[in-house]
Amino acid sequence: MALADLVRIDRNEDGIAAVLGILKQRFGERLQTGQSIREQHSHTTTYIPAQLPDGVVFAQSTPEVQEIVRCCAEYKVPVIPFGTGTSLEGQVNAPGGGISIDLAGMDKILAVNAEDLDCTIEPGVTREALNTYLRDTGLFFPIDPGANASLGGMASTRASGTNAVRYGTMRENVLALTAVMADGRAITTAKRAKKTSAGYDLTRLLIGSEGTLGIITSLTLKLQGIPQAISGGVCPFPSVEAACQAVIATIQMGIPVARIELVNQLQMKAMIAYSKLDYPESPCLFLEFHGTDAGVAEQSEFFSEIAAEHGGGPFLWTKEAEERTKLWKARHDAYHSVKALRPGSQAVATDVCVPISRLAECIVETERDIAETGLIAPIVGHVGDGNFHVSPLIDRNEPKEIEVLEAFIARLNERAIAMDGTCTGEHGIGQGKMKFLELELGTGVDVMRAIKRALDPDNILNPGKIFPLS
Amino acid sequence: MALADLVRIDRNEDGIAAVLGILKQRFGERLQTGQSIREQHSHTTTYIPAQLPDGVVFAQSTPEVQEIVRCCAEYKVPVIPFGTGTSLEGQVNAPGGGISIDLAGMDKILAVNAEDLDCTIEPGVTREALNTYLRDTGLFFPIDPGANASLGGMASTRASGTNAVRYGTMRENVLALTAVMADGRAITTAKRAKKTSAGYDLTRLLIGSEGTLGIITSLTLKLQGIPQAISGGVCPFPSVEAACQAVIATIQMGIPVARIELVNQLQMKAMIAYSKLDYPESPCLFLEFHGTDAGVAEQSEFFSEIAAEHGGGPFLWTKEAEERTKLWKARHDAYHSVKALRPGSQAVATDVCVPISRLAECIVETERDIAETGLIAPIVGHVGDGNFHVSPLIDRNEPKEIEVLEAFIARLNERAIAMDGTCTGEHGIGQGKMKFLELELGTGVDVMRAIKRALDPDNILNPGKIFPLS
Repeated sequence: MALADLVRIDRNEDGIAAVLGILKQRFGERLQTGQSIREQHSHTTTYIPAQLPDGVVFAQSTPEVQEIVRCCAEYKVPVIPFGTGTSLEGQVNAPGGGISIDLAGMDKILAVNAEDLDCTIEPGVTREALNTYLRDTGLFFPIDPGANASLGGMASTRASGTNAVRYGTMRENVLALTAVMADGRAITTAKRAKKTSAGYDLTRLLIGSEGTLGIITSLTLKLQGIPQAISGGVCPFPSVEAACQAVIATIQMGIPVARIELVNQLQMKAMIAYSKLDYPESPCLFLEFHGTDAGVAEQSEFFSEIAAEHGGGPFLWTKEAEERTKLWKARHDAYHSVKALRPGSQAVATDVCVPISRLAECIVETERDIAETGLIAPIVGHVGDGNFHVSPLIDRNEPKEIEVLEAFIARLNERAIAMDGTCTGEHGIGQGKMKFLELELGTGVDVMRAIKRALDPDNILNPGKIFPLS
Repeated sequence: MALADLVRIDRNEDGIAAVLGILKQRFGERLQTGQSIREQHSHTTTYIPAQLPDGVVFAQSTPEVQEIVRCCAEYKVPVIPFGTGTSLEGQVNAPGGGISIDLAGMDKILAVNAEDLDCTIEPGVTREALNTYLRDTGLFFPIDPGANASLGGMASTRASGTNAVRYGTMRENVLALTAVMADGRAITTAKRAKKTSAGYDLTRLLIGSEGTLGIITSLTLKLQGIPQAISGGVCPFPSVEAACQAVIATIQMGIPVARIELVNQLQMKAMIAYSKLDYPESPCLFLEFHGTDAGVAEQSEFFSEIAAEHGGGPFLWTKEAEERTKLWKARHDAYHSVKALRPGSQAVATDVCVPISRLAECIVETERDIAETGLIAPIVGHVGDGNFHVSPLIDRNEPKEIEVLEAFIARLNERAIAMDGTCTGEHGIGQGKMKFLELELGTGVDVMRAIKRALDPDNILNPGKIFPLS
């Protein structure tokens, strides 16, 4: 995407200079303005060009975030929250410059309430750090995007991952947030009760708002008990369509599958080569079941029957941890395996999600489209939710390729939206998908704009993201 | 609660007269202004006095709702959406008069997408009507508040019920909404994909907004497969505390209980008398498990062991439909059984919800409080979620009793909030709980106000609910 297509935010040079001076005095070495730090804080795993902030402050507490936001509010200078920088749609770019608040240092686990199956953490805690910390409690936090993202960032983009089909997304797994609003006030969105009808759902409003309405400074998360038994395995299918039909039947039967991931033929080829797997080069489903010993065996056998009915199988499943770990490591390494298909290239993320009844059709049409464009673009999908990622491999320095890519992405998003789906199941809108959000929700976006204007009248919180303001 | 304590909305007499004239001409007999119809449309199952709208329009389509709202917007006249009138906190009262839009006639089921486990309906469809319609599809909609409420109303108050511990609340079970906003525009909040990261979560913002931000005119709901097997039963415990400890252990073990309802001693007494049950007069848990034949047997046996460890039992469970139906009919008739404890009295609903680790403590303190006040006030609870209802029986014409009641309710809500809980798990704020919302969320309520002002600058949509605007 050409920089010209992105929202432009006029730089407020005087304000930025004033804020940098004040923050330098206040935070000393914790304000950094060097080129490489600023580059790192505008880095996104996309083909969208970087737009650097003018300074990066490493914050350590909610009052510090309040102080920084108040200072920026006074001078009307943009503030961009930053976690691990693993967002995929330009969410941490700074189109009008301004201050990046790095929250990685706010990484304390504030409370684990094992009896209530919840915990309260700071936003810089990553999902792996949280699960490592929880290991001895018998609990875990199930949301697992590919990257080891910060939980504040995961809330901001409404992230999910392979477990969402059973455990839901960040939308379903956050009980309450603390956030610093555009005027520097800190609010708490809810108490710790598991359900509530107390006024507007500010928790859900902030989740997925990508830092444009408030900066999350603590999260209370739901936790799950580590299942007594886990089984899993890989099941080959003669076609993507057959695999999708098996998925629909599995979901409809109410089998509480924990993970059901589609890997198309090209992606299997890449993973077999990269992770040295002993599987056929055909479309496969990767599955996992959570429950009791008897339960996971029952579920696995049920699925075997469904797979056979759709021409798939054999479904070789196991409760053995080592085997399963290898399998899911291969799935999580899909991104790297893909890049090996075309050394030196960059994999671009896409993220459509459709009702599962349309999934087979959407993937089949997309595979045809890929063949016609000549792109190298494998597919993996969280298919229990109807969500799949095509990852075209491009040479960022070839304008021709970018052109083909952009046209392909537009068709992909339009195809999903026409099937009553969305241009983003879990990555967010950021800068990259703004025009598709308009196509998808029309006048709904005007309501979002009105909320943004009410809560951030000077447009200082992560400006130029999700939608253009005018 | 004295009328004086409620938010006053100045009546806009000229505007109301103008709107009544226009709507009469447009809707003829579908605009009603008779006393009894107006009374019926301000009826709430609470001790809050009724405040009548000036007219009731029976709407039949989204464009009609748009037309009514546009007319009221032009003259700045209040609009109050009405479904079945079963809300509990004065949600359908009209403190400044205005127009009640009765949506009961918008009761079409627009689409059932069985493969996707979803359906799209108009807001006047009730939960029982929907489940009757779905019966042959093998699917059901799990949210079950006590009343046979309309689904539009259930979304507006973020309702839940006995199944929420397994299936979630309205928050988790709505995929998308159509709503008419204060200026008469209709918006769609999302597509039909199971998950999405496309911009602000307008679906969740409208759910629980009690008609103050928009009028819901269609809903796309998630459906569940009817489980292959269901087991259930009643388990007595020596004390409320022992029962609560068994609940905590059950949830923590990850047993996917579908219903786990506490009935305290007084409530058991009432139900035994009213529904002719053959159970001991001690605190009981009513349980239900959903799954496969083997699964529900395994879950039921697990629970038996947990109950025994906490001094409870025997847990006599059955897969027999007739037995279970009787049991849940008794549970659903709890409200009526309570009223029989004091003929001629009115049962007042309360609705606190706390983290389950605090549940035993909260209920024990509340029972002590009840004993000290001399109120007759049985307790039932959706205890898997930490939510319980104390139902004091009062004589509405006795100011002394109202005074005792109000002081008790204040202590109850304050107790729950102090335990990191909420004053409302599923009934909403309405008029009755406004001051407790402020106590619970503080500055968060200011953010709600800012959103309300941005989306409804003239405060015409259900004014005087959730929070005072100034």
